[in-house]
Amino acid sequence: MTNVEAYLKSPTERVDDLLCNGLKIIQDKNSYCFSIDAVLLSNFVRAGKKDRIIDLGTGSGVIPLLLSAKTEAPKIVGIEMLEEVAERAERSVLMNNLKGRVKIICGDLKEAPRIFGRESFTVVVTNPPYMRMDEGKISPKKDIAIARHEVAATLEDVVNAAAGLLTFGGKFYMVYRTWRLTDAIFELKNRALEPKLLRFIQPRAADPPNLFLVLAQKGAGSGLKILPPLVVYNDDGNYTEEINRIYFEDLKSSSS
Amino acid sequence: MTNVEAYLKSPTERVDDLLCNGLKIIQDKNSYCFSIDAVLLSNFVRAGKKDRIIDLGTGSGVIPLLLSAKTEAPKIVGIEMLEEVAERAERSVLMNNLKGRVKIICGDLKEAPRIFGRESFTVVVTNPPYMRMDEGKISPKKDIAIARHEVAATLEDVVNAAAGLLTFGGKFYMVYRTWRLTDAIFELKNRALEPKLLRFIQPRAADPPNLFLVLAQKGAGSGLKILPPLVVYNDDGNYTEEINRIYFEDLKSSSS
Repeated sequence: MTNVEAYLKSPTERVDDLLCNGLKIIQDKNSYCFSIDAVLLSNFVRAGKKDRIIDLGTGSGVIPLLLSAKTEAPKIVGIEMLEEVAERAERSVLMNNLKGRVKIICGDLKEAPRIFGRESFTVVVTNPPYMRMDEGKISPKKDIAIARHEVAATLEDVVNAAAGLLTFGGKFYMVYRTWRLTDAIFELKNRALEPKLLRFIQPRAADPPNLFLVLAQKGAGSGLKILPPLVVYNDDGNYTEEINRIYFEDLKSSSS
Repeated sequence: MTNVEAYLKSPTERVDDLLCNGLKIIQDKNSYCFSIDAVLLSNFVRAGKKDRIIDLGTGSGVIPLLLSAKTEAPKIVGIEMLEEVAERAERSVLMNNLKGRVKIICGDLKEAPRIFGRESFTVVVTNPPYMRMDEGKISPKKDIAIARHEVAATLEDVVNAAAGLLTFGGKFYMVYRTWRLTDAIFELKNRALEPKLLRFIQPRAADPPNLFLVLAQKGAGSGLKILPPLVVYNDDGNYTEEINRIYFEDLKSSSS
């Protein structure tokens, strides 16, 4: 790896280690920084050598970067509407020498089926904004507002775009809030993206879940499998064994 | 309580103790007998002095009987399409001296909004058949087939009937299989019965859930709360503390 500092453009930017195959990512401390949700989603995705993956609303590009290590997919696209954010993600791709495999496109995810063509991907991934416009305080910072609230794209927009982009039998992976589980299932089924696998995420073992991971398949029949919940923290406040494995597995295997 | 044997009509019938306020129920060993699902559903229902409750597909009448003890609702109706099954449930009502409060009607639940009038109940409860016609073996016994498979009523029929019977703001309670969670949410939302509360049921703590309890409210906005899962068995194979409390709470309080 070359000198990573050369890829920084502003004093508020920093390089973070993704703890996965030596991957690094540029983030701006004044902008939206990725959370554990993106890491858990990336770990939930299954894709192989024949898959073409797109991440809708890629932000820092964390999901395409992680999927480059966690899958063998030859083509991974991230689409991000904010030019400054997309440009920063593009630098992270260059910094990791992933230029041939990972592509960041600056554009509106709602336009993605038109930009890339209908049925042009076998896997769609997304960590969309969780909050409706009537929920919580909307950040005055545009990039943070867009990442958290449905300012630029609603759940319906995201599902619509995914339904257009996916081939028949293609797979849609999303992390989302349990509070909106019913909306998610309804929107997905409405567009023939049938939820097939669901995993709830709980902060602690005794807590109710606050997030879920869902895999929906285009054109599949109904019938849902639910996995045992993914618990983030032990009662002592430390990460559970599974979370440690997700975060550090590749680091461990490469250092052993 | 008078001599319960006087209420039996066949040598294959027996009287079971519901372990709840002295309630007893007549069941026929050759017919469908209620399971823990009905007990867990009855315990999940909240109803008060002003509620009118109907149980769709009441079978042995176990849910109306339990709700007579667990709620203060002055009117509890069970509708059951099979004459022999409905008549047996009616005898259980008489045996428990609940004639004024609990009423068993022989009829098709699909006709319930016509029989009772639209928006005539504030609470609808149901433990419907779980299996589509293309799943599993259909019992040659008509009453067992109807209780387990969608022979006489589908999920859509049940939800349709509930939507017709409920007042605006009225509550729908159902126990169902997780395998069909997405169908349930879709059908409910399609008829403006918004799922508001969900509780998964797991055989053991480490198992994925196989059943769920759902409360949906007519005309409510979306937004789902998920409760911590209800675990049935400890690792040693005995009922968990919570299940023991659900099964035996009233017995304990009446004997102490």
